[in-house]
Amino acid sequence: MRVDVALVHYPVTNRNGETIGSAVTNLDLHDIARAGKTFGVGTYWVITPFKEQQELAGQIVGHWTRGYGGSVNPDRRDALAIVTVCASYAEALAGATAKFGEPPLVLATCAKEQANTLGYAEVRDRIRRGTPVLLLFGTAWGLSPEMLAAADGVLPPLAGASGFNHLSVRSAASIILDRLLGERDSETM
Amino acid sequence: MRVDVALVHYPVTNRNGETIGSAVTNLDLHDIARAGKTFGVGTYWVITPFKEQQELAGQIVGHWTRGYGGSVNPDRRDALAIVTVCASYAEALAGATAKFGEPPLVLATCAKEQANTLGYAEVRDRIRRGTPVLLLFGTAWGLSPEMLAAADGVLPPLAGASGFNHLSVRSAASIILDRLLGERDSETM
Repeated sequence: MRVDVALVHYPVTNRNGETIGSAVTNLDLHDIARAGKTFGVGTYWVITPFKEQQELAGQIVGHWTRGYGGSVNPDRRDALAIVTVCASYAEALAGATAKFGEPPLVLATCAKEQANTLGYAEVRDRIRRGTPVLLLFGTAWGLSPEMLAAADGVLPPLAGASGFNHLSVRSAASIILDRLLGERDSETM
Repeated sequence: MRVDVALVHYPVTNRNGETIGSAVTNLDLHDIARAGKTFGVGTYWVITPFKEQQELAGQIVGHWTRGYGGSVNPDRRDALAIVTVCASYAEALAGATAKFGEPPLVLATCAKEQANTLGYAEVRDRIRRGTPVLLLFGTAWGLSPEMLAAADGVLPPLAGASGFNHLSVRSAASIILDRLLGERDSETM
């Protein structure tokens, strides 16, 4: 099972569909690291081109991996230890490729249906059969069109029966990791 | 489909297993309201006995449901409109019972395996067949033993293959709502 996650802060879209760079937030680091660690993610790439934002993310992670936080909460240390801060998608992809020894299947996520969709059951099966996967999540209003186009495929939007579909990236990442990697049997689905 | 969610701030446990009251946090309101609205939850009960905390939660919700927030972000208004702040589990249970016209099946959640477990597939099936359900989530280190004992059953812990199991309550609530209420078919599981 070889799965990495990347949280993209640039390029993403704003509410008007313009491409922007978003700010790193503390709970995106914690929640997705904790979910990643729970479901067996190897590396959680936090992507931002902004030097100050890279430093901020590095300081938060360091507080838990090397500083006081980790000494009082070792579980949180283990979760945040999977984070690697980097400057671009290209850097994350190169890092994942080097680690896996081959290019991963890159899958974007989007709240809107896209043309080149790969279903959860198929991806889950490919992961089980050994395909390395890099999952891309977008902050703000989601991944930019160029990021969606750069991926090998896009996972279907998450939905219930309501028609409403505005999950936080923390919720979406958690659910998608559970769908792809969570333990399932007849009793627990 | 009749499902309510309750986020308990008292009684919950701290890291030493003592019963405490925790603080309301902004993102617990937002993330669980957004996930709840996405998956068709009727009411998201935010339970705290502390007057100041009730006021804080009410102010946050009001900013989005009646104030400026909702006018610039109607989706967030629709999500936070499902929140009802109340003082106790008894009050939430009475409110849900009145709304459903019968007492709901009360299901607690816990990161540790409990004796009186009900599996996800069974609960999903009962919801489909019309049983009203109230899901209890604990903040801090989780629901107190008395809250676990008050429930009709406990959902199994969420897990991947890692053995690590330290999700945020935001992640756990999102995943559990998806497991119980998310759309599934052969392609998207």
